[in-house]
Amino acid sequence: MFDLENIKDPSFLKALSVKELKILAQEIRDFLIENISKTGGHLSSNLGVVELTIALYYVFDPKEVDILFDVGHQCYTHKILTGRAKEFKNLRQFGGLSGYINREESEYDIWESGHSSTSISAMSGIMLASDKRCVSVIGDSSIMNGVAMEGLNFLGQIKGKNPVIILNDNKMGITKSVGALTRALTRLRGSKIHVGLKRVSTKIFPNWLHVFCHKIKRSIKAFIQKDNIFEDLGFDYYGPYDGNDLVPLIKALKRIKIRKEPILLHVLTKKGKGYSPSEADTTGNFHGVEPFDIKTGEPIFIDDTQISYSKIVADYLVEKRKIKEFKVITPATKAGAKLELFQKNYPNDFYDVGIAEEHAAVMGAGMAIANKDVVVLMYSTFAQRAYDEILNDIARQDLKVIFGIDRAGIVGEDGITHQGIYDVSMFLAMPNIIVTMPMDDMEAIGLFNYAFNQKHPFVIRYPRCKELKRDLNYTYLCDLSWPTLRVGRKGIIISYGPDVLRLKRIVDENNFDLTVINARSLKPMDIDALEDALASNLPILVFEQNISSGTLYSKILEYKEEHGYTNHVFFHGFKPGVEITFGSLDEVYKNYRWDDKSFIDVIKEKLL
Amino acid sequence: MFDLENIKDPSFLKALSVKELKILAQEIRDFLIENISKTGGHLSSNLGVVELTIALYYVFDPKEVDILFDVGHQCYTHKILTGRAKEFKNLRQFGGLSGYINREESEYDIWESGHSSTSISAMSGIMLASDKRCVSVIGDSSIMNGVAMEGLNFLGQIKGKNPVIILNDNKMGITKSVGALTRALTRLRGSKIHVGLKRVSTKIFPNWLHVFCHKIKRSIKAFIQKDNIFEDLGFDYYGPYDGNDLVPLIKALKRIKIRKEPILLHVLTKKGKGYSPSEADTTGNFHGVEPFDIKTGEPIFIDDTQISYSKIVADYLVEKRKIKEFKVITPATKAGAKLELFQKNYPNDFYDVGIAEEHAAVMGAGMAIANKDVVVLMYSTFAQRAYDEILNDIARQDLKVIFGIDRAGIVGEDGITHQGIYDVSMFLAMPNIIVTMPMDDMEAIGLFNYAFNQKHPFVIRYPRCKELKRDLNYTYLCDLSWPTLRVGRKGIIISYGPDVLRLKRIVDENNFDLTVINARSLKPMDIDALEDALASNLPILVFEQNISSGTLYSKILEYKEEHGYTNHVFFHGFKPGVEITFGSLDEVYKNYRWDDKSFIDVIKEKLL
Repeated sequence: MFDLENIKDPSFLKALSVKELKILAQEIRDFLIENISKTGGHLSSNLGVVELTIALYYVFDPKEVDILFDVGHQCYTHKILTGRAKEFKNLRQFGGLSGYINREESEYDIWESGHSSTSISAMSGIMLASDKRCVSVIGDSSIMNGVAMEGLNFLGQIKGKNPVIILNDNKMGITKSVGALTRALTRLRGSKIHVGLKRVSTKIFPNWLHVFCHKIKRSIKAFIQKDNIFEDLGFDYYGPYDGNDLVPLIKALKRIKIRKEPILLHVLTKKGKGYSPSEADTTGNFHGVEPFDIKTGEPIFIDDTQISYSKIVADYLVEKRKIKEFKVITPATKAGAKLELFQKNYPNDFYDVGIAEEHAAVMGAGMAIANKDVVVLMYSTFAQRAYDEILNDIARQDLKVIFGIDRAGIVGEDGITHQGIYDVSMFLAMPNIIVTMPMDDMEAIGLFNYAFNQKHPFVIRYPRCKELKRDLNYTYLCDLSWPTLRVGRKGIIISYGPDVLRLKRIVDENNFDLTVINARSLKPMDIDALEDALASNLPILVFEQNISSGTLYSKILEYKEEHGYTNHVFFHGFKPGVEITFGSLDEVYKNYRWDDKSFIDVIKEKLL
Repeated sequence: MFDLENIKDPSFLKALSVKELKILAQEIRDFLIENISKTGGHLSSNLGVVELTIALYYVFDPKEVDILFDVGHQCYTHKILTGRAKEFKNLRQFGGLSGYINREESEYDIWESGHSSTSISAMSGIMLASDKRCVSVIGDSSIMNGVAMEGLNFLGQIKGKNPVIILNDNKMGITKSVGALTRALTRLRGSKIHVGLKRVSTKIFPNWLHVFCHKIKRSIKAFIQKDNIFEDLGFDYYGPYDGNDLVPLIKALKRIKIRKEPILLHVLTKKGKGYSPSEADTTGNFHGVEPFDIKTGEPIFIDDTQISYSKIVADYLVEKRKIKEFKVITPATKAGAKLELFQKNYPNDFYDVGIAEEHAAVMGAGMAIANKDVVVLMYSTFAQRAYDEILNDIARQDLKVIFGIDRAGIVGEDGITHQGIYDVSMFLAMPNIIVTMPMDDMEAIGLFNYAFNQKHPFVIRYPRCKELKRDLNYTYLCDLSWPTLRVGRKGIIISYGPDVLRLKRIVDENNFDLTVINARSLKPMDIDALEDALASNLPILVFEQNISSGTLYSKILEYKEEHGYTNHVFFHGFKPGVEITFGSLDEVYKNYRWDDKSFIDVIKEKLL
């Protein structure tokens, strides 16, 4: 029995037998299931890499080798082995343990990622700058992203370094080019005898003979294995190994440790390994989980009365498709964006392109050029990856691509790298594009229907929070005007998204004598409504769940300035430089002055 | 003798003999050299693809097949064959013929690119939306970029479509994975007999036999050719063919035309083909040229008294490196950024990573994590490709990466897709990052020296325009304060970059009673200087060669509003939605109210 909570660092592993390592793996797995069932978190991916992480720290010394975890939500075993087991009871809670790699938490946390596929480029930089060896653990979905491919293309050609990329293949990603490699050749290439013979033969035989032998070898390889893109890119390929079996894994890592060239080690891990409900999951429901009942795997809090905006939009798209032809593109967020049903009903109109935001955007542009309606669904934070393509290929060309920008605003437990607080700033700088955010489910439908009826690039943002489920009218249509939700005499509140409804409620409940305006179209602004607001000469308070840099507040200020109005215009939101950490939505709201109480305080201070 | 100026569309090609096609190629080549020698433009790449473009339109009917040109600066022959030869005398001149694909110019212009590597994703969209076949012509540098790789990975797996990617390999790009394929197998695979046999055998033999034969074939292939990444990605690979020889090219295209699967045709073209000074160029000097003397290849206007900011910065880096260790990373802009000497002197500290902006940024982050100083040099417009990485991996982590952002502001002849007018909006939204722009050569040095002495991500922007060459003091250091360049009593002008010096000159020359402030640090602002300006209660006019969305003007407005000042603050620059076309800097300045006369008018209107 290991005392996980008293682990200081991974050095104790060296002294363990394989039998003991296996016991440790089981105990870590039990610990993870137990803890994540209480706190929620990334379950499947972490259960998959228990043995891999143990083997890595057993073979490599973190004083000599930097270990980078791509994306970082697969780092729980790493956190346990580097002395943070105690903190798992506060996993992803405000002020607690981050669910991602976090350089402030530990010297063992080398590379903060959050967004996928950056670890190969990062290790390139670290190795070239420091002569330290780097090992990166990257998933089979992540490795096919553009920045990872750019990184592979670069790193495979670098001479005199010996990077190790561990391809953690859990068969959930894009596995075509990767997944079907056979073991036969691997045993041949990876064995000590083979490596030893190669070393001896290097000394004895002339170079042309080596070249000839290499050709023969490749020829045999080509017969017994499938194509291998990594060899093409300059990596010595090892694998695939069973990433949940410590013995071959340690053997392989030990072999790799002494090699002096770019290496790619392909390991097959089982997502959710060791917990049957999670092992059986093929839809990704156990990727990120809420607290659940260990016995059944069912979430503890099931609230059938609530529905996410992702699901509202996905349901709408299924309904809309019945009466109108269009395509849907999403970059690896099929499950998160609840698009299973759309795909099932309209397989020929649905494209999950993997973690490839840039490709998703440009492919959308191509469809628009061919006069096909297309909806591209992306999380706000991941849309940042396609900034140039959305600007240059879609907005500049004024192409009708409809963007559903999910998880706009504060996202909660995923924290700092996932906040959707930059996209408004991005989009409002672009030409031709229309940018909107609905205050509720019905308005979301209204804006989508509006978007289908017009001809420009069109953004509809919606947040992470949920709404009460209700029957919806899928034909509802709303325009880009700014409705006044209530009228008062002391001041004017302008906001958008569900925040504006919350503000109306707060104003109603407190009998504040204030006007509340729903600025559901951020670009273009409703100039008539804005003129009316400014002409009243009342103070205006703009609430935005965004970094205030080129967002609605700036646009109102600019308009006011250019047209000579003199109202006070106040802002409540986030100043550039604020970095919003993880925690439940409620906790984060409270700590970043976005809860009801803060709203009341700000309203009183600025307007009353 | 062909009358190029009277070509209406490419349909006349079908009736020509190969001999006539060759004559046409020669005449187009002569026409291009003649015209570009007068107007300037992209010479080498266009001379390289004369035969390829002719062959494409000879074999494919543009009514049935969409032809996409990646990047688009290789489209001159395409423009001639689609009826635009007459307009070449105004190539890249204001109001004239664009140097890129331009959908407004012609129905034959399918995909506007400008930024590289998007054509594969765009063709994916067009083909899935329209059932039209697409052919994309993409260079060997462009195909290794992230978005192109994402596109290849997607498109190679699509069933039932028959896209053709023509890899135009002029050996100027990253050719390692590509360039060494042998011809032997190509002849076997591409021949009609082989294809015919395959079709017959498909009908006769059982599937396992085919699989077995395919394995044998791959086995033979592996022996005689190098690895082929495109086959791995699902493309049937043809090549390499001599892309400057019409006969084999037409033969290959005809074979490909009848195939029904994703195809990659690899052609080798000679950049600069047919013009000896350009053929001999290995440094990229003939990639984009100014008007030149056809006999010698020398530029007609040589002005040794002037120097570009790229060169000022490159010279500085060479000097600085003598006394301080640091690395330099650039994504495929070694020639444009004048970094040849730095590379020559410090080969181990220089990385041109190819067209891979995302990788360049993250690799910079990795170096900073390893405590190495690093300078990443990018053009403003291409930095858009790395928005997420600069935000998430560098700014958020507060890593000391120094960005030299070249070609900030209006760029001239490259036009709409290359304007450097978005980066300020991008950078000012990001945490921790410092954003600056020097007014002259000396201040550029001063800001770089400042950047090396501090610990945060640091942007130094500089424009396309030139300065008078002079002896420089490379140890000059300036801080982030806002110097007052002159003092007046009627109003205040705030600007940055060389514009601010121009404004000072204009104010001096016209004896305007105005203060001129050099806001060389856009973030952080010099609050003391700003407070002084606002406290004067004089009207303030902010000049920014940028889209006004979250730029300095907004920040000043926000500060004014929050601190209760009442000055009028005016803006002169570009409103979101303005799209700035191509032309000489002078022409574009004049047409977008950025010339001296417009400045005087605006100053008089707003301040006097």
